Amino acid sequence: MHKMESCFLACSAEYEAADLVLFGAPFDGTVSYRPGARFGPSAIRSESCGIETYSSRLQKDLEGCAAFDAGDLELPFGNSREALDRIRGMAARIVKDGKLPLMLGGEHLVTLGAVEALYSRYPDLHILHFDAHADLREEYLGQRLSHASVIRRCHDLVGDGRIVQLGIRSMTKEEDAFGKEHVTMHKYDLNAVAVEQAVNSLRGKPVYVTIDLDVLDPSVFPGTGTPEPGGVSFVQLMEAVHQLKNLSVLGCDACELSPHYDHSGISTIAACKIVRELVLTLLP
Amino acid sequence: MHKMESCFLACSAEYEAADLVLFGAPFDGTVSYRPGARFGPSAIRSESCGIETYSSRLQKDLEGCAAFDAGDLELPFGNSREALDRIRGMAARIVKDGKLPLMLGGEHLVTLGAVEALYSRYPDLHILHFDAHADLREEYLGQRLSHASVIRRCHDLVGDGRIVQLGIRSMTKEEDAFGKEHVTMHKYDLNAVAVEQAVNSLRGKPVYVTIDLDVLDPSVFPGTGTPEPGGVSFVQLMEAVHQLKNLSVLGCDACELSPHYDHSGISTIAACKIVRELVLTLLP
Amino acid sequence: MHKMESCFLACSAEYEAADLVLFGAPFDGTVSYRPGARFGPSAIRSESCGIETYSSRLQKDLEGCAAFDAGDLELPFGNSREALDRIRGMAARIVKDGKLPLMLGGEHLVTLGAVEALYSRYPDLHILHFDAHADLREEYLGQRLSHASVIRRCHDLVGDGRIVQLGIRSMTKEEDAFGKEHVTMHKYDLNAVAVEQAVNSLRGKPVYVTIDLDVLDPSVFPGTGTPEPGGVSFVQLMEAVHQLKNLSVLGCDACELSPHYDHSGISTIAACKIVRELVLTLLP
Amino acid sequence: MHKMESCFLACSAEYEAADLVLFGAPFDGTVSYRPGARFGPSAIRSESCGIETYSSRLQKDLEGCAAFDAGDLELPFGNSREALDRIRGMAARIVKDGKLPLMLGGEHLVTLGAVEALYSRYPDLHILHFDAHADLREEYLGQRLSHASVIRRCHDLVGDGRIVQLGIRSMTKEEDAFGKEHVTMHKYDLNAVAVEQAVNSLRGKPVYVTIDLDVLDPSVFPGTGTPEPGGVSFVQLMEAVHQLKNLSVLGCDACELSPHYDHSGISTIAACKIVRELVLTLLP
Amino acid sequence: MHKMESCFLACSAEYEAADLVLFGAPFDGTVSYRPGARFGPSAIRSESCGIETYSSRLQKDLEGCAAFDAGDLELPFGNSREALDRIRGMAARIVKDGKLPLMLGGEHLVTLGAVEALYSRYPDLHILHFDAHADLREEYLGQRLSHASVIRRCHDLVGDGRIVQLGIRSMTKEEDAFGKEHVTMHKYDLNAVAVEQAVNSLRGKPVYVTIDLDVLDPSVFPGTGTPEPGGVSFVQLMEAVHQLKNLSVLGCDACELSPHYDHSGISTIAACKIVRELVLTLLP
Amino acid sequence: MHKMESCFLACSAEYEAADLVLFGAPFDGTVSYRPGARFGPSAIRSESCGIETYSSRLQKDLEGCAAFDAGDLELPFGNSREALDRIRGMAARIVKDGKLPLMLGGEHLVTLGAVEALYSRYPDLHILHFDAHADLREEYLGQRLSHASVIRRCHDLVGDGRIVQLGIRSMTKEEDAFGKEHVTMHKYDLNAVAVEQAVNSLRGKPVYVTIDLDVLDPSVFPGTGTPEPGGVSFVQLMEAVHQLKNLSVLGCDACELSPHYDHSGISTIAACKIVRELVLTLLP
Repeated sequence: MHKMESCFLACSAEYEAADLVLFGAPFDGTVSYRPGARFGPSAIRSESCGIETYSSRLQKDLEGCAAFDAGDLELPFGNSREALDRIRGMAARIVKDGKLPLMLGGEHLVTLGAVEALYSRYPDLHILHFDAHADLREEYLGQRLSHASVIRRCHDLVGDGRIVQLGIRSMTKEEDAFGKEHVTMHKYDLNAVAVEQAVNSLRGKPVYVTIDLDVLDPSVFPGTGTPEPGGVSFVQLMEAVHQLKNLSVLGCDACELSPHYDHSGISTIAACKIVRELVLTLLP
Repeated sequence: MHKMESCFLACSAEYEAADLVLFGAPFDGTVSYRPGARFGPSAIRSESCGIETYSSRLQKDLEGCAAFDAGDLELPFGNSREALDRIRGMAARIVKDGKLPLMLGGEHLVTLGAVEALYSRYPDLHILHFDAHADLREEYLGQRLSHASVIRRCHDLVGDGRIVQLGIRSMTKEEDAFGKEHVTMHKYDLNAVAVEQAVNSLRGKPVYVTIDLDVLDPSVFPGTGTPEPGGVSFVQLMEAVHQLKNLSVLGCDACELSPHYDHSGISTIAACKIVRELVLTLLP
Repeated sequence: MHKMESCFLACSAEYEAADLVLFGAPFDGTVSYRPGARFGPSAIRSESCGIETYSSRLQKDLEGCAAFDAGDLELPFGNSREALDRIRGMAARIVKDGKLPLMLGGEHLVTLGAVEALYSRYPDLHILHFDAHADLREEYLGQRLSHASVIRRCHDLVGDGRIVQLGIRSMTKEEDAFGKEHVTMHKYDLNAVAVEQAVNSLRGKPVYVTIDLDVLDPSVFPGTGTPEPGGVSFVQLMEAVHQLKNLSVLGCDACELSPHYDHSGISTIAACKIVRELVLTLLP
Repeated sequence: MHKMESCFLACSAEYEAADLVLFGAPFDGTVSYRPGARFGPSAIRSESCGIETYSSRLQKDLEGCAAFDAGDLELPFGNSREALDRIRGMAARIVKDGKLPLMLGGEHLVTLGAVEALYSRYPDLHILHFDAHADLREEYLGQRLSHASVIRRCHDLVGDGRIVQLGIRSMTKEEDAFGKEHVTMHKYDLNAVAVEQAVNSLRGKPVYVTIDLDVLDPSVFPGTGTPEPGGVSFVQLMEAVHQLKNLSVLGCDACELSPHYDHSGISTIAACKIVRELVLTLLP
Repeated sequence: MHKMESCFLACSAEYEAADLVLFGAPFDGTVSYRPGARFGPSAIRSESCGIETYSSRLQKDLEGCAAFDAGDLELPFGNSREALDRIRGMAARIVKDGKLPLMLGGEHLVTLGAVEALYSRYPDLHILHFDAHADLREEYLGQRLSHASVIRRCHDLVGDGRIVQLGIRSMTKEEDAFGKEHVTMHKYDLNAVAVEQAVNSLRGKPVYVTIDLDVLDPSVFPGTGTPEPGGVSFVQLMEAVHQLKNLSVLGCDACELSPHYDHSGISTIAACKIVRELVLTLLP
Repeated sequence: MHKMESCFLACSAEYEAADLVLFGAPFDGTVSYRPGARFGPSAIRSESCGIETYSSRLQKDLEGCAAFDAGDLELPFGNSREALDRIRGMAARIVKDGKLPLMLGGEHLVTLGAVEALYSRYPDLHILHFDAHADLREEYLGQRLSHASVIRRCHDLVGDGRIVQLGIRSMTKEEDAFGKEHVTMHKYDLNAVAVEQAVNSLRGKPVYVTIDLDVLDPSVFPGTGTPEPGGVSFVQLMEAVHQLKNLSVLGCDACELSPHYDHSGISTIAACKIVRELVLTLLP
């Protein structure tokens, strides 16, 4: 008998044959309000059986696709830098092998590890950031490495004019001021116009896409650490994901599912479906 | 002292005097992902005390209405065909007595029993189908009688051009292909235009209406077996129900409430209100 | 060492220096369907740490604001009149001291105590009422003091033409009839036009604003005693709150959060954010 | 067709033929900590299908037994005295008809109504009281009619030497002192010795038995308003119930199931089984 | 990169090298009260990371043990016989290969498939049965293949004097009578004396051991379909498992974990620990 | 008006007048399985209103007692050493002021901070440790500062023969071996004999008492990060606490309540009652 394998939906290609590689980053060590995003990757994987492999919107099917699910990294709690180093290593290897990494968070800080890997290879890297929160704090509770400062740390790397934010609806006064000067922040909504503007501004550039799933309205996505009322609809986010086909996406992630706050399971299923649309959109 | 009766809202007419008869079909034997729709009918009945008998939209009241609640059928788990036969028998009797059956599911397979009863009397039967899922599979997990193939089985009976689907947003590649050829499938939305088109195409025909409540967005209706993100709003579904007054509805159902996944109770209350609007719309 | 203080967000001014005073009214003694609004004030207070003190929409921050949180009243269960008297006393003192009271319910009946306090000082008092339910019953389960009759009791005080209702989508036939004659009832929606109309009709009048948070759709606000499907969005309610800057608001409340039905916590966070926007809008 | 009836297990005799009559008292108006006992009676009734009608310990079966389930009283919230009067009326009628009343609470205050009914007929009435709490306060939060003072109110009626308490493990200093002087309080445990002592002391007297189900350990019975760690086991309580066959029980109740805190359902099933054993023990 | 494997604790030997083989039977098609045991095997596997591989009681460690986890069978819902056939096939293959099968249920009916496989090889097969329920019904809701009749079906095979039951505390009158005549039923308790008696009576015989985990008290094991108050303690069951070292166990199972009713997770962890002790006890 | 204070039960003395000082250490940064102990202190404080201030077992009352509740420390997530330093500082100050610190965890690692403070003052410090887990690992997931290695770190400080463990039922092979050589480990049970032995061995020594509340059986205390079946009863733990009156306790803590896994609230109430008995026992 063979050993039991476990993968997201039908992402069961061999690594060598894969164009896209999923991996989980089960880390939530800097979460201040409600922890639990560490359980996100395994919940997405195990509940993915609840949706179809076929997307009628994209008219594409995951059956037989060139995607490999590498499982979850082992990440040390209480040592954020070490966790980021392991994520960076994984992303770097996938990129070096000519494949596209799709990371399942975990809290949003994990994005920094993947961005570091890509930035060291593509110094012209741009970032497209979906989120309810600006994540632009200089530090949070005395920590520079925090889910609330991750995009600020990315800015430390890539610099001004490289980061485009969508759906942002919560920030401190300081973040609001910083954002105006250093990044492009589309506030509140994720309507077709805002998305088109964002996508157009990044066309032809090497882009990393990070989706903090709490950009979704809490009614659609209650299972997250810091729900923020007044968010975007599932269809808006899905249609924005579909627009990524117009960009040169080199890596991406979907973060901040915290399944223990998702009693009805609807957040996990929403995450699964967003990841399915991501894979189908980004596969050649 | 009298024995305690139990009925949906004010549906307490005598059977003989009733124009509409509610009954529950507490069956979920073929559910693959999350079972529990068997508890739907009793939850709808017991929580109906949480809403008014009056609909301000319809300017009508259930107090004193000619509706009878027959309670729940006893259905054998593990024997789908036998369960369907009992449902068919109940629906047939109600129809024979000149009344309109309104069945509370249960998983969606129960619809087949009611459709069989009506089809044997009305060979020209058409079906109006609200759902997130196409339910058009030839079989599912080796079963031809399944909640995922119920509309395909209905198509086996009524044939091409008789089934109109609304709100469908999930299907396999095969269902998508089958749907294009054999039924009318309005995808994704339930806007006024789609509903009007659907209603117009069925005007004057004998119609069975089946509502899989998971057509609603999971934010509105989390308590269901296979939540499918990106659904329709409560008001859209309610307004579609109101349009049924323009059709010759001979029977109907509302299915797939799974109350154990409805921790906050909002799905159950939504189901109660849809059923109230159904009864008020369909009563002469 | 100092004793531990507890307040809503940064509402930590001294009483004397405050322009606005929050207090909790943890009472749910007349709730018929699902009790628990008694836990609302403490949940709002303790979970307020989950949101920012800054509102990017209003470009204002609660840090250093002139608001004081007086904590919760001790209210006797099973004696509605006595509870209302204590609420009236508290509101009267705050008003007498030239400050604006913002009461955190509790069930909706608590509004009556605050209205009594303001009415005795401002006989020209008007009321702006956000709610899913009309609350205009003459009595409920034999009680004249009930969460389902609170606005009717307010009408007993202030009389015809003084009450404007927004978002109402559930009522009895009798309430519907009474409403047409004695109050201004904007049904169902909370769009910009309805809000502007309501605000314009109250401009220049002394106004008490009462927000039954179940005006929000149950998907956004499941944690409440009588969820009513088909409600308004969070952004609609927030934007309506922002319009209050155009009125002479003398007192206000936000009621009917029932945290034990809020398993995911999204209702509590929504309540926190509405209260934050209320404080920022109403502070001079 | 017949209307749907609803009763506890097989308690479906006609009233006239019944020796024992169950009825629900869905009231929790004076609960201070966690309300919800109002939902107790309907939960016990609807979940009773989860247990057998047969007790292998008693070698007796409820099938065909002479018990009638009268359903739930309609009780006004916010008016404790009126609620008690209706309970007293119901109990009085059952007793007058020569039957034994078995009341399903509701909060513990409901016991007072039944005791009043029996005391007016049997001035020599004694009370056997199972509880975690002494319920002997003179008043609670300013109320003399409270779930925390119900046995004190019973003592006002029946006087010294008539009340025997079992399982008590929580009280104020004042209750402890009062108890020593006026009632017989067996603390903490429900071992065979304590039960035998209690039963022997009441042999031959007319006895009302009240069971506050929170006498059970919270591990066995989490679904209650004021769980009190360190309680008795299910088997201990069941065996104590079996001993009631040695007493002249004229009425009894089981109170304080609060199903909304019973997420796993084990408290409700425990309540069902205790009630089954009560009925089987007390039926002639 | 290698594909992600998934197994219970450290049961990661190769099949060929294994002495014991775990497999899941995720079936709950005949469950009448609360379904969900289909999710048992995957919950046990994924939560096993919450316990140690070492048992200090047995002074043994699973690290490096000769156990293989074969994953879950694919079982058709709604066709009990077909499901049992697949289970029988799996168990037969494991036994034929000289290994010991340890099946993770699933509802209790799955036991029948494994017993059929063993009985066809060992006509002298005896059964040791831990359960709260006798499971000796001739049929249940019209079905002969049911979780409530599984041991009766086993008796059809093995005949009188071959079945020993422990912990039984719920049954119908008919089961009680049948049990007295045809099996050895130790009621209620699982004390050392009862276990020793049971084990002694089976010494030297070929034995199949089936553990319906609802033999545990609902306080310890709330996450199950039909909780039955008054059960045995975790330590009692664990010590009984340890006694199996004195028997010739040829196959075994642990059934009826229903994780959706296990909100706190304690039932799943209890199941994990029982399975660990089973593996450590039964491995040579 | 005064600002709202918040304290555990009646522990409202002034700091200067207090003999015992409670403080919260809301940290869970090293938890590997299920985080959330950070919410423990605030849950204990806010739910303490659910129990009496009086202990009938001790015949003592917290009203007017000389205890002060200092509220919660602000602890940085992701920096375990810094968190421990702040805890050490707090404990040191309380000890220096001649008072007894009672810390509410948080995960178990917080104990190390308090032990460091006391050890630097009392080099002869002994430790009495209640727990399900030995916590004697040299490191865990690569971290030396971990909830799974906290007692090992304490041993690094105090050395052999100074640590007495009670109730331990889970450990690795290495911990089992280490324990035999370096500490006194009473396994599994908390019966009167074991407690007496432990207390006798520490009589007259300066003792720090640390209670990992998961020593309780998961049925009694489900709301914790790593529930371990087969634990001790509430009464056993309470009676062990009462025995502390025979020791020179210089500091103590109660850890590992994780309220988000405590859906019914029984764990939080159990923690409150243990803390009440601790305060009443340790106050002079």
